[in-house]
Order: sequence, then C-alpha cells, then structure tokens
Amino acid sequence: MQRKEISKAVLKRLPGYLSYLKSIPEDSSPYISATGLANALGMGEVQVRKDLAMVSNGGRPKIGYLRESLIEDISQFLGYDNTTDAILVGAGKLGQALLGYSGFAAYGLNILAAFDVVPDADMVECKKIYPMDQLESFCRQNKVLMGIVTVPAKNAQEVCDRLIQNGIKAIWNFAPTHLDVPGGILVQNENMATSLAVLSMHLQARIKDNK
Amino acid sequence: MQRKEISKAVLKRLPGYLSYLKSIPEDSSPYISATGLANALGMGEVQVRKDLAMVSNGGRPKIGYLRESLIEDISQFLGYDNTTDAILVGAGKLGQALLGYSGFAAYGLNILAAFDVVPDADMVECKKIYPMDQLESFCRQNKVLMGIVTVPAKNAQEVCDRLIQNGIKAIWNFAPTHLDVPGGILVQNENMATSLAVLSMHLQARIKDNK
Repeated sequence: MQRKEISKAVLKRLPGYLSYLKSIPEDSSPYISATGLANALGMGEVQVRKDLAMVSNGGRPKIGYLRESLIEDISQFLGYDNTTDAILVGAGKLGQALLGYSGFAAYGLNILAAFDVVPDADMVECKKIYPMDQLESFCRQNKVLMGIVTVPAKNAQEVCDRLIQNGIKAIWNFAPTHLDVPGGILVQNENMATSLAVLSMHLQARIKDNK
Repeated sequence: MQRKEISKAVLKRLPGYLSYLKSIPEDSSPYISATGLANALGMGEVQVRKDLAMVSNGGRPKIGYLRESLIEDISQFLGYDNTTDAILVGAGKLGQALLGYSGFAAYGLNILAAFDVVPDADMVECKKIYPMDQLESFCRQNKVLMGIVTVPAKNAQEVCDRLIQNGIKAIWNFAPTHLDVPGGILVQNENMATSLAVLSMHLQARIKDNK
C-alpha cells in the first residue's frame, strides 16, 4: 500500500503488534481483529484500529485482518524486509554480544563489522573486528549508514563525531551518555540506566508499601 | 531531602542529567546552573529547573548547583546507592553479556546469578549459571525482587510467570514480546526492535530525500 506519513508514536507501537501477532499459535484462527489485538495487549481499541489502518489495507468489517497478511504488511512497513547494513564501534562484552546476536536479522539489521582500539584478530561469529584506523575506508567502501556505539561513555562523543564524518546518518547509542549531533542525524539511545531507574523506583515504592 | 512524588517522565530524564554531569571535565567550574544543563542537553530551561528542584535542595540563585552535590542528590534519588539484587534467566549471548557487564554496579544493580535450561558448570565472570530447577529455592533464599528476562520470545511469558510466582516484583524484559503480568508487577521492556524500527524509518526517509 502507499506509504502514509506516520508519527514516531505509531512507529514505536508497531513492533509490539508484530511480536504479539508472531506469538499466536499456528493452529489459532487465521483472522485477528483490532479489538482482539487491543484486548490482548491491554491497549485502546480506537488506537489499535487507527494504527493498523495506517499500515495495512487488509482489514474487513466483522472479520478483521488475515494474520499472515498483517504480519507481512507491518514487517514491510517497518523495513524489516530491506536489510540495513551497520557497523559497530566498541567490541567489548556488550559489543560482541550484539555482534553475535542472530536475532537482529529478523528486523533487517546486518552488522557488517566491528571496530575497536584493541582489535582481536579472530573472527567473532563470522564477523571481523577491525582496528579503528580502518573505520574510514570501511564506511566509504561499504556505504554504511548506521553505526552502533558500544564504547564507554567517555569515548562515545568522539566515536559519534567520527562516524558522522564518515557518512553515518543514524546512530544506535548504547553508551550511557548524551550525544551531540548535527541536524539530519538521528540518535536512538538504548538507555539501560533509564530502565534501571524506573525499575528501582518501583521496587522502592513496593518495599515502602510493605512496611 | 524528603522524597516527593515524582512522575515517570521526570524519572526518565534524571539518568540523562546524571550522565552529563559526570561527563563534565574535573577542571571545569564546580557549579552548574539549570540553564547551563538545559543548553548542554538541548532541553527546556523551565523543565530542567523543575526536575532538579524535585531531587535537590542545593540550587542557589545566580550560582546554580554544586556539581558534586547534584550528582550525589540525583544518584541517591534514583536509588543507585541502594543496591538491588537481581537474577537473570536465559544465559545465552545477551544474557552472558549482561551478566559480565561491570557497568551496572554504578546504577546499583547486582546480578546475583543466572538460570538456564542448559546451564554451564563454569563460572561466568565470578557469577554462577544454575539450572532452572534451582530458580525457586534461590529466589526464596535470597529474597530477590528483580528478574531480567533474556530468553527467546516464545519462552518469555512462561519464565515471567515463574519469576512472579517466586516473589519477583519487577521484570526487565529483553525478549522481543509482550508480557502479561498481574497488578503491582512492573515490566520494563528493553525493546531493541522498537529502536531499530525508528532508526530504519529515519534512514529510509533520508535515502528517499537523496533520490
């Protein structure tokens, strides 16, 4: 279907629909309605109905969507069928875990290579870890647009600047720090510190309630 | 200072302030104002001023906050000085990376142990990986309140239910799926699929602009 303008809020809800749809057992009904999806996910029916209408034409009154088609429509919309090449900088424990994680393929992410100041000559899960001084030539040769930052916080801005100088347009930042970037560059923070703060605060409140 | 009721939105901004404050070079001015912080992070001055006033009494007109005290106040507020014990279920690549990641200590998180259906007898970074059937006794003995879920999506709900049965009140979910939980239990999703969707969409728009 023709692409419509879509808000970031809708975009962030789509992967949730997709993972739920994929989790439905094969032998269930092949159809699912916006109402059914809303109930299962504890969301508002109107919101789910609108979101689905943004990405799929397949909804039929009183029947809903054919589940397989809806999965396909959302995946296509999210670009999961278009593979995005990325490089990763910082091949420490977290970096190597991401590099070796096979689950990203389902989301259209392909991590071509990792770079580190202390590179390991060995292959890590069939992907090479290169020294930092090869970053420039690699980015140019492979026209890489996405960079994953898994260096310590104190090195993250320097790495970010260097990635942008080499043509990177989108940065997935795992370093627990704020990154300054020029307009047109997107930084998506995977902020584990934020998640931990929310969780700890919940636990503190629970402990207080129990006293 | 006395704890005030604080919204989740404020809570989510605090780690950002903290990481920026910690990134300021030692030889800079010992003071920082809400305005200075707002400018550095590209945020609204009024919002930053209000947020800081929620967690610290240290602000002085025209001078601002003593940086070290503000760092301490925010850390204390976020509970980073109270260590939270957690267990992790699913000792695959991602699980092992989290288990071996030393950076969590700074946020007051202590991962006591990991559980897996296929446990490795070896110690992983001084923490043991136990078979799943020891989950119950471990949780009870150690009064663990936080569980980290790093199993595949299809096993996540089952693991989540089992954690809750064993007294877990907060779940940090890395599995790309929705989890159903009873009231009073908090699930914080580390949704990498969502991040990737936002990044891919940005890149698709950039590529379209350049055509």
